[in-house]
Amino acid sequence: MNIGLDMMGGDFSPLEAVRGVQLYLQEVQIPVTVWLVGDEDQIRPMLQEYAIPTASVQVVHAPQSIGMNEHPTRALKEKPQSSIAIGFQLLATGKMDAFISAGNTGAMLVGALYSLKPIEGIHRPTISTVIPKENGKTGVLLDVGLNADCKPENLNQFAVLGTLYARHILGIAEPRVGLLNIGEEEGKGNILAQAAYPLLKENSQIHFIGNIEGRDILLDKADVTVCEGFTGNVILKLAESLFDITSRHKIESEYFDRFDFEYYGGTPLLGVTKPVIIGHGISRGKSFLNMLKLAQKMLETDLLGKMKESFVG
Amino acid sequence: MNIGLDMMGGDFSPLEAVRGVQLYLQEVQIPVTVWLVGDEDQIRPMLQEYAIPTASVQVVHAPQSIGMNEHPTRALKEKPQSSIAIGFQLLATGKMDAFISAGNTGAMLVGALYSLKPIEGIHRPTISTVIPKENGKTGVLLDVGLNADCKPENLNQFAVLGTLYARHILGIAEPRVGLLNIGEEEGKGNILAQAAYPLLKENSQIHFIGNIEGRDILLDKADVTVCEGFTGNVILKLAESLFDITSRHKIESEYFDRFDFEYYGGTPLLGVTKPVIIGHGISRGKSFLNMLKLAQKMLETDLLGKMKESFVG
Repeated sequence: MNIGLDMMGGDFSPLEAVRGVQLYLQEVQIPVTVWLVGDEDQIRPMLQEYAIPTASVQVVHAPQSIGMNEHPTRALKEKPQSSIAIGFQLLATGKMDAFISAGNTGAMLVGALYSLKPIEGIHRPTISTVIPKENGKTGVLLDVGLNADCKPENLNQFAVLGTLYARHILGIAEPRVGLLNIGEEEGKGNILAQAAYPLLKENSQIHFIGNIEGRDILLDKADVTVCEGFTGNVILKLAESLFDITSRHKIESEYFDRFDFEYYGGTPLLGVTKPVIIGHGISRGKSFLNMLKLAQKMLETDLLGKMKESFVG
Repeated sequence: MNIGLDMMGGDFSPLEAVRGVQLYLQEVQIPVTVWLVGDEDQIRPMLQEYAIPTASVQVVHAPQSIGMNEHPTRALKEKPQSSIAIGFQLLATGKMDAFISAGNTGAMLVGALYSLKPIEGIHRPTISTVIPKENGKTGVLLDVGLNADCKPENLNQFAVLGTLYARHILGIAEPRVGLLNIGEEEGKGNILAQAAYPLLKENSQIHFIGNIEGRDILLDKADVTVCEGFTGNVILKLAESLFDITSRHKIESEYFDRFDFEYYGGTPLLGVTKPVIIGHGISRGKSFLNMLKLAQKMLETDLLGKMKESFVG
């Protein structure tokens, strides 16, 4: 298994990426090579310092890096030797099986969509977030910002992708799918939700339980919550702010602790042909560890193979 | 000042409505008559029991009442003697200056839109919610569900209505208006947000500060946050669930205590010619008190007059 990691992505790179690799290699149980893409001069001394076993890593020199605020398309074009550009090249050519970065989100999305193909039959790849449920369980919400405007069929496909993610990554055998809406009954909602409802209802690949409302998002009502990326992104960022607020107010709560994004690491881009994981800019060692573990799990469960099967024909 | 109150609306009526009237009459400083619309046989004994001064109230008998789950339009048509139907009649004919109900929300909206007119120039009336900011201040978010699909100009009008509400009811001299969006820069967002941005930027009636994101909603960044009613409704209900969750988890926090809707009472319908306030079904005495106070403040500040002026020409 070859997992690629952008060592230059994120506000605390490459140091925190190295720390994440160290933690990961300490606990991983299977043979794995982590491909470290970035500035060799910066990385090599840190690998020594953190006693990373050289047999488990493969350093790929990338003399350029893309800044957090650079224009994605332009940066990828002008910096073919950047860690993100090289990473996607290695992923597309099969040298690596997965690629992870906490760098420029836009560049990661553009890079993935241009260098990889969407899975056949999928109109729009999507990004998701995990949602900590009040009762301790975990759900998934998608789309959370890649698709600000959606067609009903997009939501229907997100439901399938979310179902497969919940089943194989979260371990929920028969994930319940809810359509995020502003009323409980069929027929409620905006034009998009009204049109998406019958598609979800007739979709035999999912277990659709109907509409769920804002008050249900944090409850254990649906395992997979689907919506367009505008509302999903607002919810994601609002949820993340809850962790900051409870931290600042010194509110002690095991529940709100689970809103710490480090707990999850990063979000996978779903619907492209290979595993791509995008991390927060402020990722630290624990986040990188969790992203590496997520990539491993996506490969071990052959999540992508299952997605491809679902959309054939 | 004549404030009308539906005594039959809400899960705990008429008892909690009577309690609210009692609390209100104990603290009100100006001459006011509260019009109590509902089943006289139920109300009169309670007024005695709670020692409500008869000079301050006017009981209007309404032999019918609309249930919480009845179809709004049908119920209003079939029950012309219901407390909501009679309330709007008295409001439309000028007997009452404002009307409050914790009853069937749909019937309140339909009743208001049919018996009152939108303020001249306003395309779509709106409902809002107050948002407790982390630093102790209070903001307003609109629309929260009346307009699931919006045009850019609707958002622009919500911004003006929200600005006037924040100025005259919340006492914020120069309210900052933010467009809820999924990125900070102009040009980000879905088609609606992209098209609304330039309208807000050019609107001289508001102080537009640009896009705000999900993470900013609970921070003191904007006083008025505008969005379409789908996203707004999801946020409203998610925020309400935070109070329930923190209560259930016994998380003690003055901040999350402010997410208790009873703290605010109800939401006004903005953009119609007279003050209409819609309460939660589970309103208790304190909510009714706060709705009565809000109606009084809307009348004292002539909020509706200011809205009419803003949209003339």
